[in-house]
Amino acid sequence: MQVAGRPYRSIWLDEDGWAVRIIDQTVLPHQFRILRLETLEEAAHAISDMQVRGAPLIGATAAYGLALALREGADDQRLERAAKTLMATRPTAVNLRWALERALDLLRPLPTQARAAAAYELAAEVCEEDVAVNRAIGEQGLRLIRIAQERKKDPSEPVQVLTHCNAGWLATVDHGTALSPIYAAKRAGIPVHVWVDETRPRNQGASLTAWELGQEEIEHSVIADNTGGHLMQRGLVDLCITGTDRTTATGDVCNKIGTYLKALAAHDNGIPFYVALPGSTIDWTLAEGAAIPIEERGAEEVSRIAGRLEDGRLASVDLLPQGSRAVNYAFDVTPARLVSALITERGVCPATREGLLGLFPERREEAAGA
Amino acid sequence: MQVAGRPYRSIWLDEDGWAVRIIDQTVLPHQFRILRLETLEEAAHAISDMQVRGAPLIGATAAYGLALALREGADDQRLERAAKTLMATRPTAVNLRWALERALDLLRPLPTQARAAAAYELAAEVCEEDVAVNRAIGEQGLRLIRIAQERKKDPSEPVQVLTHCNAGWLATVDHGTALSPIYAAKRAGIPVHVWVDETRPRNQGASLTAWELGQEEIEHSVIADNTGGHLMQRGLVDLCITGTDRTTATGDVCNKIGTYLKALAAHDNGIPFYVALPGSTIDWTLAEGAAIPIEERGAEEVSRIAGRLEDGRLASVDLLPQGSRAVNYAFDVTPARLVSALITERGVCPATREGLLGLFPERREEAAGA
Repeated sequence: MQVAGRPYRSIWLDEDGWAVRIIDQTVLPHQFRILRLETLEEAAHAISDMQVRGAPLIGATAAYGLALALREGADDQRLERAAKTLMATRPTAVNLRWALERALDLLRPLPTQARAAAAYELAAEVCEEDVAVNRAIGEQGLRLIRIAQERKKDPSEPVQVLTHCNAGWLATVDHGTALSPIYAAKRAGIPVHVWVDETRPRNQGASLTAWELGQEEIEHSVIADNTGGHLMQRGLVDLCITGTDRTTATGDVCNKIGTYLKALAAHDNGIPFYVALPGSTIDWTLAEGAAIPIEERGAEEVSRIAGRLEDGRLASVDLLPQGSRAVNYAFDVTPARLVSALITERGVCPATREGLLGLFPERREEAAGA
Repeated sequence: MQVAGRPYRSIWLDEDGWAVRIIDQTVLPHQFRILRLETLEEAAHAISDMQVRGAPLIGATAAYGLALALREGADDQRLERAAKTLMATRPTAVNLRWALERALDLLRPLPTQARAAAAYELAAEVCEEDVAVNRAIGEQGLRLIRIAQERKKDPSEPVQVLTHCNAGWLATVDHGTALSPIYAAKRAGIPVHVWVDETRPRNQGASLTAWELGQEEIEHSVIADNTGGHLMQRGLVDLCITGTDRTTATGDVCNKIGTYLKALAAHDNGIPFYVALPGSTIDWTLAEGAAIPIEERGAEEVSRIAGRLEDGRLASVDLLPQGSRAVNYAFDVTPARLVSALITERGVCPATREGLLGLFPERREEAAGA
């Protein structure tokens, strides 16, 4: 998508053909800084430090991280150790596991000297697939935005979409998941206004979603996470779209902490609550979202916040009294009963086992065990 | 309540018997600064600049502000002008109007030379009444905490209470409303742990509630506002208690933005959701919470945040991309159907018209019109 009028992806191969370029998402929206990753350690650090984040982009970065590791030596021990290092960066991310297992399946049988090149090829493939999948999600979700537009009393008024966190192009390789239908609506000439949950504690909404939408010139307003319920009560939201980090075979959705609260409010007010996802984030072996382990992150993400001082410098400020502790759960689970529909690259379906299997029939056997 | 082991109220008469002391709440939790108010203008500034906040404390400060004004001359013109100055500080605060009207009714008929002393006496009375009401709310709410304790599998484990915003002693003269039952539980020897919603955008939870609880040595953890639903899903909350700015005759609750979302989550998980209030915040003329106009405050409360830099200085940082706008609704309405019970100084009652009238039968006529 666009940054200052120029097209970008969130990850790409450097001109030299081996190093990897990413956008440092920890300094957005205040600075637009491009980083160069040259080693496994830098790739792992980029994931764990959240310079890259978002399930699909984490998967793509892990794939490139493996390629960087193998470049320096590709025997079995290095391969397994590199995969293990990358796997440990973000325990909840299912795409990470998926990307690494796919890579290991491909690379293990190969002779050592062929592994690095194959890993690079696979990483590029993972990226291209992600872009195609997300574009398709956008086209599928666009149908739902059109329906919302047709239902408005005045269809020339913008469709009001509420989103949580950042499931935009920065969370993927391009287009995004939850934001992809919004970008598709823009291309289709449908006026949209987006309510952007700031998404504490890491503020991905205020810093990334708002920035993305601004760069794409899409109308938006940032709100405190507390606000969405009130907006829905007063008729100011036509539909909600969020992403998901992990979706169970029965349609439960594990996404950024706070998603569940917005789904409750949408349900209470009869507003559609959609979740956009690539099929790859479905965990076919899992029936119950309640069984998903929830990552607990550092308390300092709650107790401090980073921003821009008046003089333009970036700084963090402490928010809590000395002696008070903070607790930081990163995700919650929205039960399928609160999800109006799932938007996938293959179509829109009910958030049920049968709904999902209707679009992904080849997974029936795998899902039978869940 | 306690600050560094010494008992304080949020407002008190200085040793000299005429000046007024307050705690500067704009620099909490980072600095504990006591201010001395000597003039009407200083009292008015304390209210408008939010050095004092919380409906009951605003009322008490206004009452003392009038006394300070009359000390310098108490003719009719000065009396009316002082009341007008104070009324203009926070135009929407109901307790401000109530306290000033009560004062004017008392003072207007008095001879000029008797007015200052009477105003001081009234201000002290307003404070004592508030303290007594809040203490009674604490005793009433304590019964509910005891019930929660008895229901715990292991009653020696702390009772887990979730609260939103600051309805503590800093918002009142002493004890608080929502926090008063927690202080009562502490006095009764019941172990309690409080989940403190940070309460964006103004962060009254992270900065004031956490500070109060810390000074009283009550176990607490600050959480992002997004977190409460997840905690409830995982069985980590036994009950919720919040305050309210305005309660309708039918039990709808208008409180800090985000209260509605927590009430939805409590309802979805079968967790009691209590609202603590002095009878004075009930609007007997109003049936429908949806009719309450919701204050929209400055966008900069969302787009900037204040905190403590590493070197101890206080600073504000900008959070949003340049060009993105923010929208800031200050309150939302929690429908009575989501409120398990109301905790008042006269007892605990269902959040219904009949429930409230059972405790406040003298209001039946007034409520009949609502």
